[in-house]
Amino acid sequence: MSTALTSRAYAESLDAGDPLAGFRGRFAWPDDDRLIYLDGNSLGPLPTATRDRIARVVAAEWGSALVRAWGEWIDLPHRAGDLIGAHLTGAAPGQVLVCDSTTVNLFKLASAALRARPGRGVIVTDDDNFPTDRYVLQGLAAQSGRELRVIRSDIDAGLDERALSAALGADVALVCLSHVAYRSGALADMARITDLVHAAGALVLWDLCHSAGAVPVQLDASGADLAVGCTYKYLNAGPGAPAFLYVRRDLIDALPQPIWGWFGQADQFAMGPEYDPVPGIGRFATGTPPVLGIAAVEEGVKLLAAAGISRLRDKGTALTGYLISLADEWLAPLGFELASPRAGARRGCHVSLRHPEAWRLSQALIAAGVIGDYRTPDRLRLGPAPLYTRFTDVWDAMDRLRRIAAARSYEDLPAERSRVT
Amino acid sequence: MSTALTSRAYAESLDAGDPLAGFRGRFAWPDDDRLIYLDGNSLGPLPTATRDRIARVVAAEWGSALVRAWGEWIDLPHRAGDLIGAHLTGAAPGQVLVCDSTTVNLFKLASAALRARPGRGVIVTDDDNFPTDRYVLQGLAAQSGRELRVIRSDIDAGLDERALSAALGADVALVCLSHVAYRSGALADMARITDLVHAAGALVLWDLCHSAGAVPVQLDASGADLAVGCTYKYLNAGPGAPAFLYVRRDLIDALPQPIWGWFGQADQFAMGPEYDPVPGIGRFATGTPPVLGIAAVEEGVKLLAAAGISRLRDKGTALTGYLISLADEWLAPLGFELASPRAGARRGCHVSLRHPEAWRLSQALIAAGVIGDYRTPDRLRLGPAPLYTRFTDVWDAMDRLRRIAAARSYEDLPAERSRVT
Repeated sequence: MSTALTSRAYAESLDAGDPLAGFRGRFAWPDDDRLIYLDGNSLGPLPTATRDRIARVVAAEWGSALVRAWGEWIDLPHRAGDLIGAHLTGAAPGQVLVCDSTTVNLFKLASAALRARPGRGVIVTDDDNFPTDRYVLQGLAAQSGRELRVIRSDIDAGLDERALSAALGADVALVCLSHVAYRSGALADMARITDLVHAAGALVLWDLCHSAGAVPVQLDASGADLAVGCTYKYLNAGPGAPAFLYVRRDLIDALPQPIWGWFGQADQFAMGPEYDPVPGIGRFATGTPPVLGIAAVEEGVKLLAAAGISRLRDKGTALTGYLISLADEWLAPLGFELASPRAGARRGCHVSLRHPEAWRLSQALIAAGVIGDYRTPDRLRLGPAPLYTRFTDVWDAMDRLRRIAAARSYEDLPAERSRVT
Repeated sequence: MSTALTSRAYAESLDAGDPLAGFRGRFAWPDDDRLIYLDGNSLGPLPTATRDRIARVVAAEWGSALVRAWGEWIDLPHRAGDLIGAHLTGAAPGQVLVCDSTTVNLFKLASAALRARPGRGVIVTDDDNFPTDRYVLQGLAAQSGRELRVIRSDIDAGLDERALSAALGADVALVCLSHVAYRSGALADMARITDLVHAAGALVLWDLCHSAGAVPVQLDASGADLAVGCTYKYLNAGPGAPAFLYVRRDLIDALPQPIWGWFGQADQFAMGPEYDPVPGIGRFATGTPPVLGIAAVEEGVKLLAAAGISRLRDKGTALTGYLISLADEWLAPLGFELASPRAGARRGCHVSLRHPEAWRLSQALIAAGVIGDYRTPDRLRLGPAPLYTRFTDVWDAMDRLRRIAAARSYEDLPAERSRVT
């Protein structure tokens, strides 16, 4: 009933029935009661366990054990990777490694894939893929003399599977796509698209940055070849925490990655003359692993695992659905349009709203204590991450947004977009 | 006088006259009075300012400002890079960036150099270069169809400049060398070798991992083209902290690096369709910068800057010279041989001693509270980093070592080398 839904009491009743409500208390929130954080899809908040773990790694491990702590640290990239595989991305052990950044991992895996398909001159991606994916692929295409075939996506509805089918052929080596679109939140059908790509004899590389921790990912079951993902969004591992990569088991030894580093070397401390990569996913490692960052990944994943990805998915769909319902009621009359899939099964855990003044609205909303973000050209992006967002947060955020929009109070703000967010 | 030198009182008098003695108190040491740490050339200890800074970045920036803290973080890679340039590596602002790992930076810069010398089919390095350097170059040679010409170095005395000269020719695109050899500590003459390489029309890439923070480095003055270095050794930035890279100003826009990431993009948050790298050193950035690690780099460099690289160099030479004198007196009769340059001006800040039982000796020494490390095939490596090592530490360490060696107490230990250090 529409009146019930738009009343704050309705949101309160949803919070009262939320099985994940207790997890909010496991984060260190700023001392600011008005703050509503809807940007965990950009940078997740700080889990208290992570704060404590980092302090422990710094003082008790680095500070006290000094170099001897490497006995403990050396397995971290594998241990954190297997945790991600087990709880978030549907990958059996030995296929996920935490290392480097998403960008560097994209480069490593895409490079390796191109080497595995030497006779094929085309890389396929879509124009709505995340910028770093598109740039890395542009670079690889230029360096390897290949064509980058960029299919057109609908920036509200996501990947156009017919356009993808039309772009596939015997000349395609690699297809790189985002599982959840960074702007609209549109969720791609990983299994069906993987099959499409495989039918053309190409390899598929999935970017899980906006899906890992937000929606269930089934890498093994879908037959995906390769994947990368970041840990500072839904995994809450902190600013610039290291990324992860996945290589399907049977491809691990067949795909030579381009950066031959000493952390991928068999019997590393023999320091022998010839590069001889370790068997298994470890050969995708490069340099010395960033210990603090990986420890934070481990804590972040443990927290998500305790909540359970299926409960997180259910709550995430409910939160974004509720946000959309309120937008329909309150914001559509004020000139906002939904710029994300309406069907819960077709979106991840963030929602974009289109408005010509999206930039100034996002700034006015931040000034009103609601942190979301702006995305080009005219999107206000709101991510109610299920681990810690309350239904009342969504209600309050939408209530403040409608007041700002109705009063046009954003018109006092500069129209120029900042270069930092 | 030999008696004076071998008495502990002599070491105490050196400590009493040490202008850097106060810096030892700026580290968080383990609660273990017997511990003598001579492995800061592998992993530097924890500065208390770094412990506090990390806690602040975690709680006050990430935890409280959340995504808004990016306004503060976005310049960190440049700020920390410029600090390294100003205080440690003789580079004017705008040429040093903190990012990725040494391995990834080596790959980026070596790749870029090869693209800048397309007609030249040879990469030169030496067989005593650090393993990750050799492996990265092997990979690049294999991927670009080039020859990797590996010159023979003396693993005690360092680079053989005649062998290098003989290897240089019009076919050489790139020469990659370590400024200080990881095993012997031999210090290469950066200016003279850079001239040699330039005379052949090639580019030189210096690995500063074992020299930055230990010896003065003059990148600009020597005319060096490219450099990389790590921050977890003498810069004390913690396990797996990000590395740095240097590109000489006039080469920055001429050398296209291979990993086209969004953090190297002009007007990054326009998220435009085409990669358009930012002018300046920022184009060597790839993915999201690891904020905690870079903050730790900044603190580490500030501490070194407060001590001053020239005072650090003086004390470092005195410490390693003293260690060698004690080794001559006490250890030579017990079968140890110096495996580092004897002339202070020709070595960095660590010393290697050759002994057929080096592995077991290193383990026995650790059991006796002295942390150094073992390097293949038969080296005990000891690094008395000048920022925090006392002359009495060197005396005590050498005293314990001679007792272990004389009593042959190491013979109870397993002969098998561990795979972790």
